[in-house]
Amino acid sequence: MNNYPKPLAKLIAELSRLPGIGGKTAQRLAFHIISMNDEDAFSMANAITAAKKELTYCSVCGNLTDSDPCAVCSDNSRDRTVICVVETPRDVAAIERMREYRGLYHVLHGAISPMDGVGPDDINLRSLIVRLQGNDEVVEIIVATNPNIEGEATAMYAAGLIRPSGIKISRIAHGVPVGGDLDYTDDETLSRAITGRRDI
Amino acid sequence: MNNYPKPLAKLIAELSRLPGIGGKTAQRLAFHIISMNDEDAFSMANAITAAKKELTYCSVCGNLTDSDPCAVCSDNSRDRTVICVVETPRDVAAIERMREYRGLYHVLHGAISPMDGVGPDDINLRSLIVRLQGNDEVVEIIVATNPNIEGEATAMYAAGLIRPSGIKISRIAHGVPVGGDLDYTDDETLSRAITGRRDI
Repeated sequence: MNNYPKPLAKLIAELSRLPGIGGKTAQRLAFHIISMNDEDAFSMANAITAAKKELTYCSVCGNLTDSDPCAVCSDNSRDRTVICVVETPRDVAAIERMREYRGLYHVLHGAISPMDGVGPDDINLRSLIVRLQGNDEVVEIIVATNPNIEGEATAMYAAGLIRPSGIKISRIAHGVPVGGDLDYTDDETLSRAITGRRDI
Repeated sequence: MNNYPKPLAKLIAELSRLPGIGGKTAQRLAFHIISMNDEDAFSMANAITAAKKELTYCSVCGNLTDSDPCAVCSDNSRDRTVICVVETPRDVAAIERMREYRGLYHVLHGAISPMDGVGPDDINLRSLIVRLQGNDEVVEIIVATNPNIEGEATAMYAAGLIRPSGIKISRIAHGVPVGGDLDYTDDETLSRAITGRRDI
């Protein structure tokens, strides 16, 4: 790397700090960026700056947004009786992609993980309780944290906090993925798929 | 993607234009960039802009540089009797990494490839001939284009242009890579390794 002119070495160094981008990939990307025309390269640089400057977190639900409250929270056509609790803004995007769920969200920005030193107060959970206080519209909270240990722990903890309010709490279903193969499904998932069986 | 706020969608779109970066990876990178602190994100954006603004091609050898002539061409301690002809600035960096070669370079920025419509005049080859005219220092040209069809064709064509000047022309050796396995070496490479055998 020392053989590259400074601005190139700097660009490679910056790119290799991205997750999953190693030294070789960073070099390849840097050379590609240099070979792009000025307009395209500056457009990419501006996109980074603009995203960083213009994006903020919704003061209501915690989702990533360029306006506060976010598009979902300020959309009067959404069903305000249901709040879906997710770990990240990407989960919101995934659920929105289905175009089926019409309720609101609450983004935790993480999950409780004692192993990583992440406790209940390190995620955006208290604000959900505050949000529910004095709000008599909400009738159901769907906890859609990830189906792993941290997500489950977070779901249990959140349920414990919400329960006194009397609001219905549900958890997304776990089971065999659609298009999946029973034979290749891990035991825990299969066990949950059988426990969670439904009448047809 | 339509569910993301505009600045985020724009950043994802820009990142997914990079080679080898698909939609999912672009999303992951974009979310990472947003989660970086302002200073780091702006530093990355600036690195792109700076690399694009400050880097140029050496008017002598064609290598990527932030000063013209480049560091190699203007280094008086380099051996000016040898010029190594390579396809890309990355090849220069690879050879410089060895810290063995002390001569000069000439970067072609590509290889002759009739299939892709790249002819001799589409690469930085004529400038090598101009560079050799009236230069009586150079005694050898090492053609280090890639060991593939395009690289070979380019090497042959360049040799044809240089030969009338009487300068010695050599080609980097092809053979079994060090640490490689004879059994897994392709026929063409093995054949060249045998043809190019040396006394020990």
